Amino acid sequence: METDFVKWLLPRLPAHPRLEVPAGDDAAVLRPPAMRRTVITVDMLTEGVDFILGPDCTPRQVGHKALAVNLSDLAAMAARPEAVVVAVCLPRSAGASLAEGLHEGLAALALEFDVALAGGDTNAWDGPLVISVTAVGSVPPGQAWRRSEARPGDLIVVTGPCGGSLLGRHLRVQPRCRAALEIAGRLTVHAAIDISDGLSLDLSRMMTASGAGCQVDLPAVPIHEDAVRMSRDQPDAGSRRTPLDHALADGEDFELLLAMPPDDAQRLVCDPPAGLSPAVIGEVIAEPGLFATDSTAARRPLPPQGFIHEFDG
Amino acid sequence: METDFVKWLLPRLPAHPRLEVPAGDDAAVLRPPAMRRTVITVDMLTEGVDFILGPDCTPRQVGHKALAVNLSDLAAMAARPEAVVVAVCLPRSAGASLAEGLHEGLAALALEFDVALAGGDTNAWDGPLVISVTAVGSVPPGQAWRRSEARPGDLIVVTGPCGGSLLGRHLRVQPRCRAALEIAGRLTVHAAIDISDGLSLDLSRMMTASGAGCQVDLPAVPIHEDAVRMSRDQPDAGSRRTPLDHALADGEDFELLLAMPPDDAQRLVCDPPAGLSPAVIGEVIAEPGLFATDSTAARRPLPPQGFIHEFDG
Repeated sequence: METDFVKWLLPRLPAHPRLEVPAGDDAAVLRPPAMRRTVITVDMLTEGVDFILGPDCTPRQVGHKALAVNLSDLAAMAARPEAVVVAVCLPRSAGASLAEGLHEGLAALALEFDVALAGGDTNAWDGPLVISVTAVGSVPPGQAWRRSEARPGDLIVVTGPCGGSLLGRHLRVQPRCRAALEIAGRLTVHAAIDISDGLSLDLSRMMTASGAGCQVDLPAVPIHEDAVRMSRDQPDAGSRRTPLDHALADGEDFELLLAMPPDDAQRLVCDPPAGLSPAVIGEVIAEPGLFATDSTAARRPLPPQGFIHEFDG
Repeated sequence: METDFVKWLLPRLPAHPRLEVPAGDDAAVLRPPAMRRTVITVDMLTEGVDFILGPDCTPRQVGHKALAVNLSDLAAMAARPEAVVVAVCLPRSAGASLAEGLHEGLAALALEFDVALAGGDTNAWDGPLVISVTAVGSVPPGQAWRRSEARPGDLIVVTGPCGGSLLGRHLRVQPRCRAALEIAGRLTVHAAIDISDGLSLDLSRMMTASGAGCQVDLPAVPIHEDAVRMSRDQPDAGSRRTPLDHALADGEDFELLLAMPPDDAQRLVCDPPAGLSPAVIGEVIAEPGLFATDSTAARRPLPPQGFIHEFDG
């Protein structure tokens, strides 16, 4: 029951210096850091679309993912995570143990990034699990990375290999928060976006927002070993997608795409933050659209591909 | 489709001085007001539990309600509304027109309270509509109303008549934000909570949080005319709930319960904010629990009643 779960939960929420009024009241009260802007983002995950609960996808992993995708959005703004609130709608038949598992996944990641668990809303119904996390971060005035400020001549850097996340990586999202803050502290980034829906789709979004285009050097796109496995294990060789196809379109990589002046991009690649394997994959051009080049040097349009929620008009 | 809806939506989101980076990026960036704390709350509404779409419940009304219940939580903290983010999961078959209706309801209420629409997340699935709104407000340091600070001797004030909200009022929620700010500016309030789940249940929550109890003067409880209608129109006279039963247990009134020193309570009742009809309904006592008194003066336990989300343990 809601009341029992909340009773279980409240003493498990750690005190945090950022909380003037903790969870358990009508709202939480946060002490915002001085001289910084407030950054806010929300992501809702639904059972059957974003995850399928089962032996390979535990409630704890869903809790982790629900917070991690929001922290990834903060990383894409160069924002420091501060606090989160969580709303869930639980299937009535599987309530309390599911809710506790979700909390464990959320709490472990929140601890790792020193994020205050500030509150939430617990509901129940006869439908599947829905979880919506709102994350609050902070950034100095005027310093947030935008997706709209890429400039012709910038190089595009991706912070790690992409593709095949469905093999399990999409549940073990490692948000690039620390790397983003380190990069923001020592290098110039003109534009940024995180790869949630597909490298090529999210890159095209950045280019559209910036009123520019991008020439992608296909052989330079870092391909995750999961993309190789997914391509190899497809039964039908006739319609087989290559590892590169997976890297360009699969999504849920939660790496960052950064548009940077060439010197800064090179510095990032030569001296990356710990654990990061960034690669230059292309160059911003004035002509709108995505274009692919490869060893044959023939330039051709690169159709953006990735995940879009479909509903009727 | 998600992309089409977002394209429709973004130009309709009004610019707001509080937004350094508006909706449309990975996250929004807010300019927080100086010298104030950040107040944050989230509420998720689900089709079939919180509303049933149909001729008497339009998408626009659902949008209004989803924001209004969050503003009511801010009112219960004496917080000034600042900004909101909205996550929705749309039934695939009824997407775009539904999404546009939701937005119209949200936007009209946001305009009324000068709240910045800062961003959101649009999803689709084969399930019913889910909408989760996160509201951000602000309050001077140490000035947020808590639910835990009611003291024996305080009088309990309810800001308006209760009961029968299901007849339609639950969709036309008028959050008490302006009244709360006016009251906070001129009177002492020790504790506050909004009536979302039922007057007696929310009152008992305030008392539990405060380590106190309350003696409720039943004849003083203001009964909404909807409660009278609901009681009268019940077919089975044998199990009929009285108007007072409805006022004590129905919920979704979104009036405030305030614990105030007696002099301040009397001042509020004699000189209320415009449009408010507050009434003193009881007194805080040291003994835990809720107790009812009436014209017979016999004191008896008053079981808290209201709406609780049920799920299995």
